[in-house]
Amino acid sequence: MPQPAGRAQRRGGGSRKPREERWAELFAVATDIFHEKGYEGASLQDIADRLGMLKGSLYYYIHSKEDLLFEVINEVHRQGLENIVALASQPGDPLQKLRNVIVGHIEHMCRHLTGTTVFLHEMESLPPERQAEILGGEHAYRSVFLDLVSKAKADGLVRDDIDPKLASLAILGSVNWVYRWFRPGGEFTPRHIGEQFADLILRGLVAD
Amino acid sequence: MPQPAGRAQRRGGGSRKPREERWAELFAVATDIFHEKGYEGASLQDIADRLGMLKGSLYYYIHSKEDLLFEVINEVHRQGLENIVALASQPGDPLQKLRNVIVGHIEHMCRHLTGTTVFLHEMESLPPERQAEILGGEHAYRSVFLDLVSKAKADGLVRDDIDPKLASLAILGSVNWVYRWFRPGGEFTPRHIGEQFADLILRGLVAD
Repeated sequence: MPQPAGRAQRRGGGSRKPREERWAELFAVATDIFHEKGYEGASLQDIADRLGMLKGSLYYYIHSKEDLLFEVINEVHRQGLENIVALASQPGDPLQKLRNVIVGHIEHMCRHLTGTTVFLHEMESLPPERQAEILGGEHAYRSVFLDLVSKAKADGLVRDDIDPKLASLAILGSVNWVYRWFRPGGEFTPRHIGEQFADLILRGLVAD
Repeated sequence: MPQPAGRAQRRGGGSRKPREERWAELFAVATDIFHEKGYEGASLQDIADRLGMLKGSLYYYIHSKEDLLFEVINEVHRQGLENIVALASQPGDPLQKLRNVIVGHIEHMCRHLTGTTVFLHEMESLPPERQAEILGGEHAYRSVFLDLVSKAKADGLVRDDIDPKLASLAILGSVNWVYRWFRPGGEFTPRHIGEQFADLILRGLVAD
């Protein structure tokens, strides 16, 4: 469950659950409003209105609109990363893992389309140091893809002329772009999209 | 040269060139400001200040900030589309054309990184009908990629299990994503990126 940073003490006493539920609600509504209006266009007043709260009550959870965007993006990123790290940790050779990561990442994004859109669209609204705090010094997301392609190449599974860095950026691009055109209930299921993309990419990578 | 819609009459008389030059300047500065501050964060005042003009003088060229964003995005889209349509019209089989389109599109985007970023990042700030006016009913950009993959498949150059629609979306994603990580003077030239991406994609598509 998402929690605002450094609020544990203030949220410790009394009826704990309702406060956590309230935070989860705030988190969900903030995600929706940032999605609908964009970060610049959204106001804490909009968020309070939809929650049926006074704007002043929001300050119990966050200091500013920027704090709230940080919490939303940080949590979306954390969940997405957890998902692909888990998939990359399953048994198999690096290319089988890459297949699972591609399919599972697309499925995850399509299930969390609103949060993903806020993450990919509003990240630059945060100051660079808070972006870095989310992404990590190593750019953790990219690293999962890069590590798998690099390991596959080291194992001789991938063509010699593949540059793992560029290949992983190409993969990440095709996969992340899905949020821009996928519509739930549309022509393709997330699984089918993932499998087609994985087929295309893996065929592109493999050594003869 | 970009021109504001429907202004031909007002721009017809007197010293024509300086007005066109002024519009080109306005266009370039607006692109930079939308890139730096985002559409919501940018104001006509910011743009006038950087041009050393009075804000009121901007209304000679446009009615509103939205008009200006429309003109910028429309022009970036028009130039980008013109580039790939020209590449797709050169001699060769559909896969050779696709290779040229991928490489040439990446080179074009990297040369026009600021405009591309405004196009890809701020399109949704326009009302749906103005987005549709730019993209065209057929979604012209996607169609160039889709047509080439479809033709390649019809010619037996592409595997039977490739869905041209999903394959062209995967290609467009990997290619368009470049604007998010490419930095001029960085590790890779646009041409090298384009060639690596084209190799990966074409190998992924080709029939055995």
